[in-house]
Amino acid sequence: MNFNAGPAALPLAALERAQAELLDLGGTGMSVMEHSHRGKAYEAVHNEAIALVRELLAVPESHLILLLQGGASQQFATGPMNLLPAGKSADYMLTGSWSQKAYKEGKTVGTVRVAGTTEKDGKFGRIPAQSELSLDANAAYAHITSNNTIFGTQWDKFPETGNVPLVADMSSDIMWRPIDVSKFGLIYAGAQKNLGPSGLVVVIVRKDLVEGGRKDIPVIFQYRTHAENNSLYNTPPTFSIYLLRNVLDDVKKNGGLKAMEQRNRDKAKLLYDVIDSRSDFFSTPVDKAARSTMNVVFTLKTPELEAEFLAEAQKRKMVGLKGHRSVGGMRASIYNAVETAWVKALADFMREFKA
Amino acid sequence: MNFNAGPAALPLAALERAQAELLDLGGTGMSVMEHSHRGKAYEAVHNEAIALVRELLAVPESHLILLLQGGASQQFATGPMNLLPAGKSADYMLTGSWSQKAYKEGKTVGTVRVAGTTEKDGKFGRIPAQSELSLDANAAYAHITSNNTIFGTQWDKFPETGNVPLVADMSSDIMWRPIDVSKFGLIYAGAQKNLGPSGLVVVIVRKDLVEGGRKDIPVIFQYRTHAENNSLYNTPPTFSIYLLRNVLDDVKKNGGLKAMEQRNRDKAKLLYDVIDSRSDFFSTPVDKAARSTMNVVFTLKTPELEAEFLAEAQKRKMVGLKGHRSVGGMRASIYNAVETAWVKALADFMREFKA
Repeated sequence: MNFNAGPAALPLAALERAQAELLDLGGTGMSVMEHSHRGKAYEAVHNEAIALVRELLAVPESHLILLLQGGASQQFATGPMNLLPAGKSADYMLTGSWSQKAYKEGKTVGTVRVAGTTEKDGKFGRIPAQSELSLDANAAYAHITSNNTIFGTQWDKFPETGNVPLVADMSSDIMWRPIDVSKFGLIYAGAQKNLGPSGLVVVIVRKDLVEGGRKDIPVIFQYRTHAENNSLYNTPPTFSIYLLRNVLDDVKKNGGLKAMEQRNRDKAKLLYDVIDSRSDFFSTPVDKAARSTMNVVFTLKTPELEAEFLAEAQKRKMVGLKGHRSVGGMRASIYNAVETAWVKALADFMREFKA
Repeated sequence: MNFNAGPAALPLAALERAQAELLDLGGTGMSVMEHSHRGKAYEAVHNEAIALVRELLAVPESHLILLLQGGASQQFATGPMNLLPAGKSADYMLTGSWSQKAYKEGKTVGTVRVAGTTEKDGKFGRIPAQSELSLDANAAYAHITSNNTIFGTQWDKFPETGNVPLVADMSSDIMWRPIDVSKFGLIYAGAQKNLGPSGLVVVIVRKDLVEGGRKDIPVIFQYRTHAENNSLYNTPPTFSIYLLRNVLDDVKKNGGLKAMEQRNRDKAKLLYDVIDSRSDFFSTPVDKAARSTMNVVFTLKTPELEAEFLAEAQKRKMVGLKGHRSVGGMRASIYNAVETAWVKALADFMREFKA
């Protein structure tokens, strides 16, 4: 039972499919990894993956889908390199470690400012209200991290940024529920939580932002380069994209994002209910309204109890429950592919451990 | 029989191993893709891959090994971003399409100049002699492409650049034979020919160049960032690195780079011998001294004959033999993992087709 924060559990069906055809993609006698990225066999996989992103998230025609390398960490740089010209400034809303990292990397590229933060004594336990934000109406864009894996918080309603394009790092919660993509100028998500293996980042970007993007940066970093070449300008990470296809196909077969949302809400409720009903034993540093459906962070009374909890969980084949070193405690990451049965087993174990 | 130019054939043993443990890495009950990149199980794979690169290529302690994303195309930009400061210039030796691309991307970063080219009517049939080069003794570095996949040429002896660090894109021929790594300031190689699947680039770089590298670029693009974090600053492409490990382990078990060189030379000779002994029927646009051991480029008398050749080859389960669209004709890519038996079958077929 894999509760890793990422890379994380993948749907068993997606992995079994990969295993079955690892040496022979569709009767070609070759692994998907051995196919040319310009050949028909791979091209079909590539286009199916893109089509599934578009279908599942209902991405409108105003937006392009790019499959790139370098993860979200690279997007922290290439986002501003494309969208933040000299003379303009970009807004960042700080809700955790990853938004801080995005902000810091943004600084290496251009002028960035903090448009809101929920930091308190080095920690982040909540998401800011709209009224707390000081947004710049002339900003090149306004950036959020939609889910904060380390602190266990998540934006429920996204901020209103008027005409300023909203940019979101959705690495840890893309595809967990339906969203209105038209509200965003740019969405990027490292694949290794809800989408597939690491080494792939999915970028969804408004066409006009691509067209108006900066041209004074290396060709490889321009969104337009990849947009004009259907993400085949250079050799893409073909196996990761193949797995993305398998994962999204599995999501579709299981009812798409509406079914996924219900399942994820049910899973999160199982754990938060135990925490709330045993608040003398478990506690969570997270504001109730900001609780993440993807990463459930909680603590026990003493480090000794926490160590015992983790050791006992390990015996029951539950892994990945240790909280991030910067926060401590426990963290159950319950992304799309984490099965309800595992979450039930964890909730049962929590009750039993307290008893 | 896979003669693709890249992504290309992988050793069957490496793929079979991946298939066998795709759902269960070392008894953990989880796929390598589902493991945390900060966990022990993955860490062992990561470090083994790096150690194998060091051992097989006899990389001296003066050099670091980094496992990054973005392929060679991204190194075209990040190489100069790190190594080419304002006020300095870098030399490029042009021997084909990829070195032209590296040069063009270098231009987007800083001052670059051509230190030699073998271009003639848009094509490149040879490698320049040392005497043809006009090297700048004050250059930040001098860049070559060690093997030219499209035109089928390869540097046999590397150029002497004195105190100027030699930088080489070795994407299409790294690990084909032993080399003296100490002669290079920077080597980079996209994995998808001799090393593993796409989505991974191996960088071998001199420590002093990393330390002296530019700091006025985004953190994610600084070699020092990845050097200081053992290539774990951000989530690495774990599955691609796992496959790199499998591939290099297979190379080692098969005798390392000396055995690989003999095997590759024998394979190339099989094809060039047919071409040379039937020069009224097959021809190659490549200077004899510059012939690549990795990509054997040849033509037939007419487009009709070439089409027939390809169709007949396809019937014999030989794929990937069509030359690059910019050159035409045929190209047999015979990287490390292309089996001698396949090359023999191709040589036999060539003789038979001519007969």
